Amino acid sequence: MALFLFLFLATTLGISQGSDQDTVTHKIHLLRPQSGAAGNHVPGLSCLSWRLGVETNNVVGWITVPEECEEYVGHYMLGHQYRKDSRVVANQALLYAQSLSLARDCKDVWVFDIDETALSNLPYYAQHGFGVEQYNPTLFNKWVMEGKAPALPETLNLYKKLLSLGTKVVFLTGRPEYQRSVTANNLRKAGYQTWEKLILKGSSYSGKSAVVYKSSERKKLAMSGYKIIGNMGDQWSDLLGTDVGNRTFKMPDPMYYIS
Amino acid sequence: MALFLFLFLATTLGISQGSDQDTVTHKIHLLRPQSGAAGNHVPGLSCLSWRLGVETNNVVGWITVPEECEEYVGHYMLGHQYRKDSRVVANQALLYAQSLSLARDCKDVWVFDIDETALSNLPYYAQHGFGVEQYNPTLFNKWVMEGKAPALPETLNLYKKLLSLGTKVVFLTGRPEYQRSVTANNLRKAGYQTWEKLILKGSSYSGKSAVVYKSSERKKLAMSGYKIIGNMGDQWSDLLGTDVGNRTFKMPDPMYYIS
Repeated sequence: MALFLFLFLATTLGISQGSDQDTVTHKIHLLRPQSGAAGNHVPGLSCLSWRLGVETNNVVGWITVPEECEEYVGHYMLGHQYRKDSRVVANQALLYAQSLSLARDCKDVWVFDIDETALSNLPYYAQHGFGVEQYNPTLFNKWVMEGKAPALPETLNLYKKLLSLGTKVVFLTGRPEYQRSVTANNLRKAGYQTWEKLILKGSSYSGKSAVVYKSSERKKLAMSGYKIIGNMGDQWSDLLGTDVGNRTFKMPDPMYYIS
Repeated sequence: MALFLFLFLATTLGISQGSDQDTVTHKIHLLRPQSGAAGNHVPGLSCLSWRLGVETNNVVGWITVPEECEEYVGHYMLGHQYRKDSRVVANQALLYAQSLSLARDCKDVWVFDIDETALSNLPYYAQHGFGVEQYNPTLFNKWVMEGKAPALPETLNLYKKLLSLGTKVVFLTGRPEYQRSVTANNLRKAGYQTWEKLILKGSSYSGKSAVVYKSSERKKLAMSGYKIIGNMGDQWSDLLGTDVGNRTFKMPDPMYYIS
């Protein structure tokens, strides 16, 4: 079972088969992917409708995934639909990027969020009810400090193609400054070899919302002469506010909400 | 069969059983609702992922529904999922409206788009491939001029509750001025009995995008002292731009795209 889940997640998330990854496999929630589960009827609340509401920013300010949707969200995240949904977004982003004539002054940047955009914390959330459990900063930060988050393969693929088009990449994350080193190492290990800037949330933004923090940092980028041609995140707070970029792309994430 | 489809659509869309509605039934596309079809696997393109991409504004500027998704979109629109998705949006909107303390100066307004938001053109689109066929203004305007579009029941329900909360309603539609009378009559017939303003697209906006036209008209509302507390539409062009309102709500529509 553990081997099956490891192989599945290895395939799904492109986890490299280094021996240090084995520790991940033993922690995986025993929810097995069931093809076609995403979209099934759930009595009462339609979890598919709830998920659509989340993705479209109609359902906002929620704290945890509705209990009756744990299995639905788990199957969605571990199954094919999450990956297909991510692929459509990444493909649209690539088509858009390819349609642009870059300024060739090396100031065109693409902003990526990190968690659930560049890197996946699915190995963590699979152990914590896929968002049904309330966010536990102690446990989550412990997971982050392990530096073992795999890449979201669709984003990594897009990242590589953007680089080949001459676009520079900026990572803009809500992770705190003290996680800079582990985050940089994790990004490299996951395949993100280079970037123009890696922006983490400094203590001056303590208590500020993600929208305020990220808008402010994007404004600094613009003031420095960068042109944000694209901006991709799994939270609407990555994509709303000011200086959002020429076009924004919403990656799926039905597990948590950040305002 | 025709009777079955009539009864189904009558139930689904709340078509009143007046005899003048019988003409609608004979025109319905022979695609019968199949429970659970929405979300099924489609080889190659995932139509569910495509639909999510549309709803999240990741897939933009498309002209027609991909051919391989005609059946998927048809089943979605005629089946339960479209209605459930709409219900989640309307419920969130109502919860939000109920949470507000209205200014009680009668200047709080809620902006509704009309087509696929207040009224449903499903009887028309069911005959035209659910968005697979390219938009035909002659045929579509002929349908509009019949004034027989049923209400989208979730929106009508929200509308009634907003009125009872003391909110005034503004309809802001891309329909042209010459359709004012038929549109007003259609709205009343469908159950929308009253409104503060019914704004149609005047000739001065000819050639202007929906975002420009609707932003400009919303600005006029704001300049007149109205406060847009909510704004609901099926197109992102209803909800983006300026003066969008305190909160926006995206109704589902995988059948067409308006920029």
